[in-house]
Amino acid sequence: MVDGKKLKKIVIQILKKRGMSLSHATISANALINAEYVGAYGHGISRLKMYCERIKKKVINPKPKIKIKKISNSISFIDANNSIGFVAADTAIKTLIKNTKKTGIGLVGVKNSGHYGLSGYYVEQAVKKNLMVWCFTNAPPAIAPYGAKKTLFGTNPICFGTPSGGKVPFILDTSVSMINRGIIRVAARLGKKIPAGVALDKNGNPTTDAKKALKGVQLPIAGFRGSGLAWMVDILSGVITGAAHGGKVRDPFDDFRGPQNVGHLFLAIKPHIFIGKNYIKRIKENIRIIKKLPRIKGFKTISYPGENKAKRFSKNSKKKIYLPKEIEKDLKRLIGAPSK
Amino acid sequence: MVDGKKLKKIVIQILKKRGMSLSHATISANALINAEYVGAYGHGISRLKMYCERIKKKVINPKPKIKIKKISNSISFIDANNSIGFVAADTAIKTLIKNTKKTGIGLVGVKNSGHYGLSGYYVEQAVKKNLMVWCFTNAPPAIAPYGAKKTLFGTNPICFGTPSGGKVPFILDTSVSMINRGIIRVAARLGKKIPAGVALDKNGNPTTDAKKALKGVQLPIAGFRGSGLAWMVDILSGVITGAAHGGKVRDPFDDFRGPQNVGHLFLAIKPHIFIGKNYIKRIKENIRIIKKLPRIKGFKTISYPGENKAKRFSKNSKKKIYLPKEIEKDLKRLIGAPSK
Repeated sequence: MVDGKKLKKIVIQILKKRGMSLSHATISANALINAEYVGAYGHGISRLKMYCERIKKKVINPKPKIKIKKISNSISFIDANNSIGFVAADTAIKTLIKNTKKTGIGLVGVKNSGHYGLSGYYVEQAVKKNLMVWCFTNAPPAIAPYGAKKTLFGTNPICFGTPSGGKVPFILDTSVSMINRGIIRVAARLGKKIPAGVALDKNGNPTTDAKKALKGVQLPIAGFRGSGLAWMVDILSGVITGAAHGGKVRDPFDDFRGPQNVGHLFLAIKPHIFIGKNYIKRIKENIRIIKKLPRIKGFKTISYPGENKAKRFSKNSKKKIYLPKEIEKDLKRLIGAPSK
Repeated sequence: MVDGKKLKKIVIQILKKRGMSLSHATISANALINAEYVGAYGHGISRLKMYCERIKKKVINPKPKIKIKKISNSISFIDANNSIGFVAADTAIKTLIKNTKKTGIGLVGVKNSGHYGLSGYYVEQAVKKNLMVWCFTNAPPAIAPYGAKKTLFGTNPICFGTPSGGKVPFILDTSVSMINRGIIRVAARLGKKIPAGVALDKNGNPTTDAKKALKGVQLPIAGFRGSGLAWMVDILSGVITGAAHGGKVRDPFDDFRGPQNVGHLFLAIKPHIFIGKNYIKRIKENIRIIKKLPRIKGFKTISYPGENKAKRFSKNSKKKIYLPKEIEKDLKRLIGAPSK
């Protein structure tokens, strides 16, 4: 069990030691600790060792020169210069907020980035500025396109957020695979099983063995539909931005031959462009109506996307953070490890 | 069997007789016949009788005064004045193309519209102008939100298109329900069964009886994920535009108490804003890589979204159109029926 503030200082220290500025190390530490608080352990501290290894092997640039090209008042294009994904995404969401505030609609493309953790974390930042937002990113091969027996698409999340009129924003953050790859990865490290029906092994047989699933194929939601959505996200993130696409995003854990070159596309609109302040009244009404529906057995409440995550954050951020022993050991090694 | 051109003339005649201008009747006839050609019979001529009834009962306005409000060079807002959905969507996609060509990014919201048929039909028009496009629309209650035992969301399609570099555009047009409601409706009319696992009856039990399914609940894809996507589409189509939302879009077949007030949101970007002409090279490469993957048994090819529909269009548009007897009778009645 580690205190969150203390853990943040440790992460900053570890990343600074590897050449990152205080500002970039802080952005990264905040994102990693947020993942722990919302219960997305596969995107949290368990990844720190990998990030450090990538910096050491010069496939993450700890001192990136990020270029922001202004295409119009609404549109910007970012070359993240192989920064850690958190820093690229942080730059992108801030640029997006600025553009959208100015013109009502904003668009930011990013290339030469890396894994940035949870899309919902960035979407939330823009929603808190009263914007409606989408974030798309591609990822290393995990899902087989419909009809193929080889993985190619990443888990390619679709993330959408809007102010809800209440304290907890509406944030849908759904990968198009049946299960989050980070969850499989943590299960593999800890020797735990994964649920049935979410993955196949490398021979195309169903498996609950996390290690076998990592070498096999994750199943997309809804066959052709999920596969199509994953393909859309690859086009939006990779093809349009000049980033890697078509299965060429490198796996950050396994492939150190070069930077990942992940691509992102961030898009936002002002939700009151058409109907003014009525938007907040209407979204509140929408949520109220749906929450009042009769429920099926076993459901105490009907939740909107983002509610459960917010509850977990609120509960966990008051407590110390639990880290598996394996990961605590990593941390100690990383603090003690020589800087280069 | 009816010749397509002849059928188009008949549809135009029927709609003009009910007060529509030649131009609006032609727009509607084209959309209906396109649905027949692509094999989406649930969105085709089977709906004509319903449209005529709605005009007769004054819940579709055959002579709408459509207002287009320009919010910025990129953004427009359309009040469709309860026009038939085809005309509202046609106005919207043309406005969207204009806005996007001007600024690189365009957005059009629509309220007071109706069922517009296939999203892919409008997306294709913008893709042919070399744009990347999304269309969202809501629809009458068909899917229960996750945890609820009452339907509320429509089948709320997500439709995305982009130039593919080839003759056939990439168009993903996927409802978030396991099955298209139009298919269930046609099955119900013709007394046919629907596949297992796509719907529940009104008591929450699985059913393959199309009539029972219409009164029950359609299942969303992927549980909470599909439900969340349907909710997003309701917000985008209904909440933000001032149209009906939260289950208040009227069923066009069953509810004649007032106009449907469907909402749509159309969004587009120039796909070469970031990387210029390379976009076409890259999307071609993306598709080529994926099509070359090793296939699972039973797949002769890996298709990208839109390919199968294009094949059906190409095949069917060379032949006469088959109409079930029931629907042929409708047509005869509609031609003969008095104009008011």
